[in-house]
Amino acid sequence: MIQELANELRQKYGIEFKDLSLLDEAFTHSSYVNEHKELNLKDNERLEFLGDAVLELTVSEHLYKRFPELPEGKLTRLRASIVCTKGFSSFSREAHFDRYVRLGKGEEQMGARNRDTLLEDLFEAFNGALYLDQGKEAVVKFIRQIIFPKVDVGQFNEFTDYKTALQEELQTNGEVEIAYHTLSEDGPAHERVFHVNVTANGEVLGEGQGASKKRAEQAAAKTALTQIKMNQSSQTN
Amino acid sequence: MIQELANELRQKYGIEFKDLSLLDEAFTHSSYVNEHKELNLKDNERLEFLGDAVLELTVSEHLYKRFPELPEGKLTRLRASIVCTKGFSSFSREAHFDRYVRLGKGEEQMGARNRDTLLEDLFEAFNGALYLDQGKEAVVKFIRQIIFPKVDVGQFNEFTDYKTALQEELQTNGEVEIAYHTLSEDGPAHERVFHVNVTANGEVLGEGQGASKKRAEQAAAKTALTQIKMNQSSQTN
Repeated sequence: MIQELANELRQKYGIEFKDLSLLDEAFTHSSYVNEHKELNLKDNERLEFLGDAVLELTVSEHLYKRFPELPEGKLTRLRASIVCTKGFSSFSREAHFDRYVRLGKGEEQMGARNRDTLLEDLFEAFNGALYLDQGKEAVVKFIRQIIFPKVDVGQFNEFTDYKTALQEELQTNGEVEIAYHTLSEDGPAHERVFHVNVTANGEVLGEGQGASKKRAEQAAAKTALTQIKMNQSSQTN
Repeated sequence: MIQELANELRQKYGIEFKDLSLLDEAFTHSSYVNEHKELNLKDNERLEFLGDAVLELTVSEHLYKRFPELPEGKLTRLRASIVCTKGFSSFSREAHFDRYVRLGKGEEQMGARNRDTLLEDLFEAFNGALYLDQGKEAVVKFIRQIIFPKVDVGQFNEFTDYKTALQEELQTNGEVEIAYHTLSEDGPAHERVFHVNVTANGEVLGEGQGASKKRAEQAAAKTALTQIKMNQSSQTN
C-alpha cells in the first residue's frame, strides 16, 4: 500500500521519499491506531500539526512574492481561501490521498475516507512528513504543482473572468485566434447542460460544462489556463 | 535611528542585516506612511503577513522536535500560548522594538507605541524582514535566544513548579545547595509584597517578588532558570 503510494508520488510529482516510515505515519489515522494497539503505531496528528505550519509559510511566501503590490488584507483573504478545509481536501483528492489513508473499520463505515476535514488533515500530515524528510524546498516543489497553478489562474479569487485571463495569457506571444465551440446541449429545458471547448489557432486547449453557454465557456477557459500554467511550472522545474 | 537599531541587533543577538531597507520597512507603521505620503514609504503590514507564517513554522518545528512525546492537542495549546498577542508583544518589548517603530503623531499621542497589538505586529514584521534578508535559519537563531529558553523553563505551560524545575536543572551536575532568602516584606497587611532571592552554593541566581513568600520564591526560581537557559543557548551559538 505504502509502496504503491510512493510509486504514485514519484511518477506524478517527482517526489522520492527517503524515510517511508514518515509517509506511513502521515497516512495512519488515529482510528486505525486504536484498532491495532498491538502494532504500536503512531497516528498522523503530530505531522498534521507541523504540516499545517509548513503550508501556512510556503503558501504565504508564494503569495507575498507573486503579488508584490497586494496589500496585507487581500493577501490574508487570499491565503485563507487556499489554506482551508475546502482547499486542502480538494488537493488531497486530486493527489489520490483518500485512496491510501489507513482507517479503523468504524470510521471507514462512517464514510470518513471522503470526509473533508479528514482529507484536510491528511494533506497537512503529508506535507509535514515531506518537510521532515526533505526540507521546505521539497514542499514548495510539490505545491508548485498542486496549488500554485490554481492561484495563478485566479481560482481562489472572489471572481475571475477566465476568458479574459486566457486571452491575456495567450496574446503575450503574439496574435492568437481563440474560439469557443458548443459541443453539445443536454438535459430538459430547465436543466440544460452545455458542453464547450476552447481552441487557439484550431488546437483544443480545454473543455468545460455549465448551465449556460457563458458558464461553460468560463469553465473551458479555466481548464485551459490551468493546463497552461501546469505545463509552465513543470518546464521550470 | 535604523542604524541604532541595527547596532543593537548586532550586539545583543548577533544579527547583521544585509538590506537595511527591509529593516526600515518592518519598523514603519502605516500611520507614519499616511503622514508622510511625499516620502512614498512602505508600511510593515506585508512583512507582518509573511512574518506571522515564519514564526508559526519556526515555533511549531521547535515544539515538534523538543517534545517528541507530546500529542497534537497539547502541542497546539502550547503553540497558541506562544504565538499570540501577549507572547509576541512581550518579546518585542524585551528586544526594545517599541523604541524604534516609526509612528504617526496621532498614534504616538494615543499611546500606540506601547499597544500590545502594535508590538505583536512589529515582532511579526521584524521576523518577516529577517526571513527575507537571510532565510529561516536566521529567524531560528533569533528566536532561539528570545523564545526557546522561555519554552524550556515552562513559561508557557499551564502551570509549572519552577522551584522543582530549578532543582532538577542544578542537580544534574552533582549536589548543589539551593536556598531561598526573604529580602524584604513591604506594603499593608492585605497587600503584602515579598521580595526573595535564590542562591546556589551561596551564589545569587535570581530574584523575585509576589503576594506570598511561596509565590515570590517561584518567581525567583523562574528568573534563575531563564537566566541559566539563556546562558546555555548563547554558549551553543
